[in-house]
Amino acid sequence: MLRLPLAVLLVAAFFSVAAEEGKWTPSQVLELDAGELRQMGLQIAPRDLWDPAKGSGLLSAAINISGCSASFVSTTGLIATNHHCLFGVLQEHSTRERDIISNGFLARERGQELPGRTTRVTVPRAFADVTAQMEAAAANATDDLSRYHALDRKQKELVAACEAKPNRRCRLARFDGGVQYILQEMMELRDVRLVYAPPRAIGEYGGEVDNWMWPRHTGDFSIARAYVSPSGEPADYNTANVPYAPERFLRISQRPLREGDFVMVLGYPGLTYRSLLAEEMRERRDLFFARRVELFGEWIELLEAVSKDSEEGRIAVAADLKSLLNRYKNAQGQMDGFRRGDLLNKQLLAEREVLAWAASRAEWQPAVAARAELLRHFEERLTTWERDFLFANIGAGPKSLSFAQTLVRLATERTKPDMERDEAYMERNLRSLLATLERQQKSYFPEADKQMLLALVERARKLPSGQRIEAIDALFPTSLSRQELASRIDALYRNSKVLELESRKAMAGESTEALRARKDPFLDLAFSMEERMAGYREAERRWEGTISRLRPAWRKAVMAHAGKPVAPDANSTLRVSFAHVAGYAPRDAVAYGPFTTLSGVVEKNTGKDPFAVPSRVLDAAKAGKGSRWKDAALNDIAVNFLATGDTTGGNSGSPMVNGYGELVGLNFDRVWENVANDFGYNPAIARNVSVDIRYMLWTLEAIDGAGELLAELGITR
Amino acid sequence: MLRLPLAVLLVAAFFSVAAEEGKWTPSQVLELDAGELRQMGLQIAPRDLWDPAKGSGLLSAAINISGCSASFVSTTGLIATNHHCLFGVLQEHSTRERDIISNGFLARERGQELPGRTTRVTVPRAFADVTAQMEAAAANATDDLSRYHALDRKQKELVAACEAKPNRRCRLARFDGGVQYILQEMMELRDVRLVYAPPRAIGEYGGEVDNWMWPRHTGDFSIARAYVSPSGEPADYNTANVPYAPERFLRISQRPLREGDFVMVLGYPGLTYRSLLAEEMRERRDLFFARRVELFGEWIELLEAVSKDSEEGRIAVAADLKSLLNRYKNAQGQMDGFRRGDLLNKQLLAEREVLAWAASRAEWQPAVAARAELLRHFEERLTTWERDFLFANIGAGPKSLSFAQTLVRLATERTKPDMERDEAYMERNLRSLLATLERQQKSYFPEADKQMLLALVERARKLPSGQRIEAIDALFPTSLSRQELASRIDALYRNSKVLELESRKAMAGESTEALRARKDPFLDLAFSMEERMAGYREAERRWEGTISRLRPAWRKAVMAHAGKPVAPDANSTLRVSFAHVAGYAPRDAVAYGPFTTLSGVVEKNTGKDPFAVPSRVLDAAKAGKGSRWKDAALNDIAVNFLATGDTTGGNSGSPMVNGYGELVGLNFDRVWENVANDFGYNPAIARNVSVDIRYMLWTLEAIDGAGELLAELGITR
Repeated sequence: MLRLPLAVLLVAAFFSVAAEEGKWTPSQVLELDAGELRQMGLQIAPRDLWDPAKGSGLLSAAINISGCSASFVSTTGLIATNHHCLFGVLQEHSTRERDIISNGFLARERGQELPGRTTRVTVPRAFADVTAQMEAAAANATDDLSRYHALDRKQKELVAACEAKPNRRCRLARFDGGVQYILQEMMELRDVRLVYAPPRAIGEYGGEVDNWMWPRHTGDFSIARAYVSPSGEPADYNTANVPYAPERFLRISQRPLREGDFVMVLGYPGLTYRSLLAEEMRERRDLFFARRVELFGEWIELLEAVSKDSEEGRIAVAADLKSLLNRYKNAQGQMDGFRRGDLLNKQLLAEREVLAWAASRAEWQPAVAARAELLRHFEERLTTWERDFLFANIGAGPKSLSFAQTLVRLATERTKPDMERDEAYMERNLRSLLATLERQQKSYFPEADKQMLLALVERARKLPSGQRIEAIDALFPTSLSRQELASRIDALYRNSKVLELESRKAMAGESTEALRARKDPFLDLAFSMEERMAGYREAERRWEGTISRLRPAWRKAVMAHAGKPVAPDANSTLRVSFAHVAGYAPRDAVAYGPFTTLSGVVEKNTGKDPFAVPSRVLDAAKAGKGSRWKDAALNDIAVNFLATGDTTGGNSGSPMVNGYGELVGLNFDRVWENVANDFGYNPAIARNVSVDIRYMLWTLEAIDGAGELLAELGITR
Repeated sequence: MLRLPLAVLLVAAFFSVAAEEGKWTPSQVLELDAGELRQMGLQIAPRDLWDPAKGSGLLSAAINISGCSASFVSTTGLIATNHHCLFGVLQEHSTRERDIISNGFLARERGQELPGRTTRVTVPRAFADVTAQMEAAAANATDDLSRYHALDRKQKELVAACEAKPNRRCRLARFDGGVQYILQEMMELRDVRLVYAPPRAIGEYGGEVDNWMWPRHTGDFSIARAYVSPSGEPADYNTANVPYAPERFLRISQRPLREGDFVMVLGYPGLTYRSLLAEEMRERRDLFFARRVELFGEWIELLEAVSKDSEEGRIAVAADLKSLLNRYKNAQGQMDGFRRGDLLNKQLLAEREVLAWAASRAEWQPAVAARAELLRHFEERLTTWERDFLFANIGAGPKSLSFAQTLVRLATERTKPDMERDEAYMERNLRSLLATLERQQKSYFPEADKQMLLALVERARKLPSGQRIEAIDALFPTSLSRQELASRIDALYRNSKVLELESRKAMAGESTEALRARKDPFLDLAFSMEERMAGYREAERRWEGTISRLRPAWRKAVMAHAGKPVAPDANSTLRVSFAHVAGYAPRDAVAYGPFTTLSGVVEKNTGKDPFAVPSRVLDAAKAGKGSRWKDAALNDIAVNFLATGDTTGGNSGSPMVNGYGELVGLNFDRVWENVANDFGYNPAIARNVSVDIRYMLWTLEAIDGAGELLAELGITR
């Protein structure tokens, strides 16, 4: 009996192909079995994807735009990425009179394009393996803390030297804890302009309701253009600038994309955690995500209740609430995914297999020992886990305490030489830190803040002995009733000035002595917590040093045991994932097809945000079946599609490329069942969500009549 | 490209078979094309389903149990129906010490079976066509109101004569407004005992959350047994009684049920509206359901707000709130379904086709004229629609007014001879009416009631001129502010006694004079509204008379035009629907398979109601794949299945029967997309939800070890 779409069954056959799992580095592409890639559907040679000799290839058409992935799509500097990646530019130029957020935007000629003040594009230029230098720098460290500092200093030096070249942005990328260190040299383009964005009702169709969900009907695309000086150098915005001519760009596919087709995801995935030991994953599942659900769930409830009857309160807490809700939902999804994919058990079994293999091999005994030592240190860290978790979340909690702590640290760090400060407090980052301290004032709602502090203190008071926070115990003795506690907290707020913007701005320039002299109760609390906090930060750094010493040894054993390339965890560097267009079965008796259609957009239309299809789109949709972008098999315009792409955050805007190296779509999300993908690949539900490039073309043509832009994209009648 | 499961595509082929749509009467089964039924999958002869000469056949194994459908499943009087249909018996016998609602119940021997005090089974005995008598009775009516009364009296006489036979329960059924009148003679069995019910966590698995939904995983089955006196006559409960030996019963199928298999739904569907004219359907869609959403939505919001902070309030309003929510959700589903199925337009087109056909046929001119006259009367009714809607909903609103109106009507009707009273006020129904008046006291929550009355009065004050309710205008002049209105309403409640149980019970026995003498403000309001209310009731009766005169003429034209049998609207009489096991595509990119599985039950388990799977079920589920009830194709135990059965309310417990006449499941719901099915058949989403009989057998065997009961059902090792 065929209970699932044929596609789901077909895809099962692909799962045996090893390359389906993994975000491969450019150099790994050439280590993979070329025959296997061809069998999967890659029509061009792997060397066309990446030529390490030249440090270039099709992959270098994938660029980074303000934290998102993107791609060049013309010889004239046109860039395709997600609508949400260029939303800031729309905000920058939208006015009440000219609401381009709602209505969308199309520059009918180059002079109309809209510069994004802070929009930056980085184009990969050179990747240098500096592993030996990093290891040498750490060779003489006497313990893991000094190891951390030695690596940190070396990294800062390498980046500074690299950025000494003009127009370069450099970053040291660490792979799997330190198996490899790559210095990435990127060219930064600073004149980037918005060329096209669809109406918000297309670009954000479905909004928060559909976020993470399938079936999806979101036209999450926008087009920008990069400019350089007339001499071809990166330059600040200038009307004299000319379009940048990229070395590589992606042609728009004019082949119909079909279920089962081979596709690649190019881009800059952010962070994944598959190289963690099973016990570290257990900590994520049973402690980290579980406590997030508890703590954020409590705060969410409290913020919703306290702001329910106050318009002012609702506005103030909106941003924090949205952020908490997002992380809360994510944590639930991670826990769900752990269960669904049996991820922990899989990692345990995989680890046991490597251990058994290594046991009889003398050369891998150090790896076995490294794993054991890593586990030992890790377990030590668990003894203060609950307290450390509270410390780590103060920043997401009551502003009173988080403002005070930032002010105290600012005064302390400022006394150090720049290169020895924590990165956030280095001169080049100070402006942003002060701006945040100011901007957060509008998120401050006293009643909400007091209740969050009360909730935090109550949690601190429940900490086991050995993990107590003495400063909190001193200020709020356990003998106090809940009511006495609340009134003591009220008093702190009454007597503190850290929540008044002007006072706080003044404090941000003061020394520790001046701050102490203020006798401000929240500053005093922050000072008295500081010793514990400093200890916590030092332990975190030491742990980083431990990881850099031990994890690589173990990971090398894992790789040797695999006997084939193993993709390292994502770390915001250029990667490619090989995939197929495929639906999936999310749960019993339900099968999802891999394509959604324009008819589906209309089907969801309620006339109300986030499902309000503009009437011109409804009209065009009626004629959609006559469009040249109609897919013959679907008998409709394809809108979004699913593929087995191995993606994570940072892949927003990633070009989806077919076997011929042509652009077929833009990745913009993962499905809900696939959130825990960061901890392990579950082929049954590993699906990324992309907007079909034909939907973008249809929108450009049928909604906006953007014939000239289409021509620039190589699309003519 | 195959985007949908093969099944959905396969089923499309069946849609051309006319018999897939329609709830056929027993006699119609023999009018259908036998070859077509065979081709659909019916293996037995249509005459085996129903032999009109004998008034018997397989269909007569389908019985009615307390408003639900059910079937005999053994020679020893065993009856299979839904868990929710016998829930009342569980409530009757459940105690704190022996919580059979939660734990389920199995009688290990006959002496343990639990009698249902008010549970009644009716077995079809004879169906007599009395159309000629009814028409003769109405022949001399001078207008539609007298026509109504003539038909009403004749109906009461026929029923009384029929029930003069011992142990008979009779009912006059009207088909499509009066195309046919059938006097139904049923044998009533009064000693019915509960034999088996699964734990609530199986029988109601998914609860309100999954209600109307697919995928579904509910074990909605129970087993009862009917008893008769030792001489074989229906009798009240008595330990000397013996199991009833039914003339016909359904054997439990031991063939695996598969996607695409032919199935029949037998049972007693309640009410459908497909014979309405398109304009009448428009009134349902645009006025009736739309206003229900408004009015019930307002009341729901108000009840939720007013009871939010009061435990007492929440308990008091719970039942009314649940009922309002249910009707509110249903109204939304109906409007949704009208849109989805384009039902109104389809009916318009169908009507136009019949009109065009009839236009050139002299013999059908009276039908055309009847339709036109029906429409004219219908449109007249619309002139007071908004007021009539409020009148019709007072009973669901504030108890103050509805109690008072009931008391006034009771006093008025009691002065009439029994046969002339409204049915609800006839002697045989008075006990139930008085019990309701008493029982509703526990649903009375003063603050909620006041606000509902306020909302109702405000709606009344917005009625257009020509539809005003003078009594409300007089008591609450439009000059009053909202606050003055509220305080006047407060005063009514302060000064009235209708909301005090003892006073109300006394009032229920008083004459109109005595009630007037009380000067109770709510009674006074009810008296002053009574003239308008009486007018409303009379208009309703007159409209019934009009329908009985005109609709049959038009429907006969519709049937003649069809040139083949047309199933009449459901009216709680025995019907059969021919169907296939099939999934469907609820929306873009989503396909639902037709079977859910035991693994799906476990997948939904959260440990919390309504998804709390008992641990013994979880344990048994682990071993489920080794069970003899495992479906080889699913490689799992089938739990629920979808079919294209044409069902409605009243089909709860309907036996699902395969082409060999064997029981394969019990119908218990429709899917959400199919709610508006009552107004038109939409083959793409016409799906009924049944529990697979193999899930019941597995539960009996693996959870309850009910070997003897299984043996009685013909299942042996």
